[in-house]
Amino acid sequence: MDDKLIDVPRGLSGVAVADTAISQVHGADGYYQYGPHSAVELARTASFEEVWHLLVTSRLPSAEELDGFRARVQTAQESPALGRVTALLARSAGEESVTPLAGLKAAWPLLSAARGMRPVYDLDESQRLADAIELAAAAPVVLAALHRGESRPLPVLEGRGVVANYLYQVTGDVPDAARERALSAYLVAAMDHGFNASTFTARVIASTGADVASCLAGALGALSGPLHGGAPARALDSLDEVGSAERIEPWLRAQLEAGHRIMGFGHAVYRTVDPRSVLLREVALGFGGPRVEFALAFEETAERLLAELKPGRALHANVEFYAAVVMELCGLPREMLTPTFAVARTIGWTAHVLEQARDPKIIRPSARYVGEPLAS
Amino acid sequence: MDDKLIDVPRGLSGVAVADTAISQVHGADGYYQYGPHSAVELARTASFEEVWHLLVTSRLPSAEELDGFRARVQTAQESPALGRVTALLARSAGEESVTPLAGLKAAWPLLSAARGMRPVYDLDESQRLADAIELAAAAPVVLAALHRGESRPLPVLEGRGVVANYLYQVTGDVPDAARERALSAYLVAAMDHGFNASTFTARVIASTGADVASCLAGALGALSGPLHGGAPARALDSLDEVGSAERIEPWLRAQLEAGHRIMGFGHAVYRTVDPRSVLLREVALGFGGPRVEFALAFEETAERLLAELKPGRALHANVEFYAAVVMELCGLPREMLTPTFAVARTIGWTAHVLEQARDPKIIRPSARYVGEPLAS
Repeated sequence: MDDKLIDVPRGLSGVAVADTAISQVHGADGYYQYGPHSAVELARTASFEEVWHLLVTSRLPSAEELDGFRARVQTAQESPALGRVTALLARSAGEESVTPLAGLKAAWPLLSAARGMRPVYDLDESQRLADAIELAAAAPVVLAALHRGESRPLPVLEGRGVVANYLYQVTGDVPDAARERALSAYLVAAMDHGFNASTFTARVIASTGADVASCLAGALGALSGPLHGGAPARALDSLDEVGSAERIEPWLRAQLEAGHRIMGFGHAVYRTVDPRSVLLREVALGFGGPRVEFALAFEETAERLLAELKPGRALHANVEFYAAVVMELCGLPREMLTPTFAVARTIGWTAHVLEQARDPKIIRPSARYVGEPLAS
Repeated sequence: MDDKLIDVPRGLSGVAVADTAISQVHGADGYYQYGPHSAVELARTASFEEVWHLLVTSRLPSAEELDGFRARVQTAQESPALGRVTALLARSAGEESVTPLAGLKAAWPLLSAARGMRPVYDLDESQRLADAIELAAAAPVVLAALHRGESRPLPVLEGRGVVANYLYQVTGDVPDAARERALSAYLVAAMDHGFNASTFTARVIASTGADVASCLAGALGALSGPLHGGAPARALDSLDEVGSAERIEPWLRAQLEAGHRIMGFGHAVYRTVDPRSVLLREVALGFGGPRVEFALAFEETAERLLAELKPGRALHANVEFYAAVVMELCGLPREMLTPTFAVARTIGWTAHVLEQARDPKIIRPSARYVGEPLAS
């Protein structure tokens, strides 16, 4: 059969593995869409729940639909089954070093089993959507409970929505509107971004007809890999290491001359300014203060030195850099930055699982055998 | 960017997404290799541990290496961390309907966290191999404990190896040598089989550098999908539904005339007899008895009717049909057939994760946007 194999670029780079109506990234032009909408505009103007509704149903909700959707999410976040799964994992976290991410990887299949969720190909569209909403709603609750090591999540703040509740459940403090809006902007902007490795993982698993939980857990596994790019905490580690404004330039110069990458700069897709970093810089400026001034000086110096030392590469701050700054301003501890990214990206994964499930064809590629021939 | 996309067949069929030296399936000629060895010959002659060693290290072990490998696997199966994770999930199974497969999906990330396992790109080859062996060794222990609903696995039978211990831990009975050999033949034959969806999932996750547990949990999610083909219990359900020899032909004729598939017949890759079903038929014949006679009559009639009613399709019994019969003869209950397939395929997944990790390039394809254009 080998003579019939189709060769493609390594890592499937540039290979169109599916059709999608969910989103599109315009890397050369520096913007991206969620359906017909600018994703960054939505992050500025729409709520987390509105864009969640858009991604999983292809439509922004009416006011009435939005109320129903929020109520449905709150019911899922307060469900007894989720409470039991969370309590079980939190007990385990007492004995073992169960990180929030590892706990969420375990929580999804356990919740699916507890709720009797079934393979996507056995479900109609509305049942799949129900599972997708319930599992995505569980993510912030599980992550926050495991972070706090508590067997019972803090009670839901009535009328405050997913973002404020997540901040509350992680930090223990009721967040002000500015922090809620800032985190919401980040989360909406991070919900989806093309066929990254985690989104593709979710779709490959969905193509076998597995339950939604299996797709999400697999995708979260991919997101936890260091090459996925989901490690915004590294940018804050760099800021801390530099320490003061006058050390920025010598520190950056030493890093670059030693051949090290600058965390939070450069992107695989954008050849221009990352539209997410423009948005998140704006959000950070809304807070102001010395940390934001320091981050701005770091960015300005890094871009200048990168242009000087790596001319022609067009390396700019990517989403990680200001995402990290914004999440810190919102009061999230450093170890919750990647889990918070997962809260956002889970919404995109569920949208892709729902889309993939409408096209029941298994994704089953081939490989070229380069090992020893059969010994005779 | 869309104008530069590379189009490929739907489901990536026939697309060579990687080079591999692990295995090769010759679908037209009806055989497959594990490295330079015939997989079916290995299933007849080599032990589970020997072929496990071959797949993850590219070499069959010497007698001394085999002893070391078996000791290492036993240590992993008796590790305190695995015992705690298993106990936690078994407690949960008491309250909730945690199936063995859902429990294993949860157990791997929890064990990885408990043991402080790290991203594959942060590890050298021997550390990756250690994680891969430890996690694969855990699979039969967790599945058996959750099947029996016991918080503590039965003690390991000294000197009996993985296969006998798995049978013992599932059924509670010490298996005879015939059952051990029969199940071993099935498991070895099922360890790997080209770039199916679960193996590909494991490699996509590994390409991000995630820990081995994330790769395995994602792959298990894909295996649990109905299109993956891992549902051998359906073939037994058909045999039960038919009930007696004289009903075989009318039952099959009615199914085919109604346009239904016959479970356990036909395969995506093999255009000839599936070499695994030849092997497993042999193994079943070694047991003999009325159930085997009945299965043979069913197969013979199904092949004759398929040739008559679907001429030119070359539909034969696939691996599921005799795999189900053999697992039943070995004393495995029907709900453990897919979990037992997972015990085998986990070995292949770990081999592919190790191979993928040697080529640190993220698998990140694209998609063609077919949604609405940006509203202006």
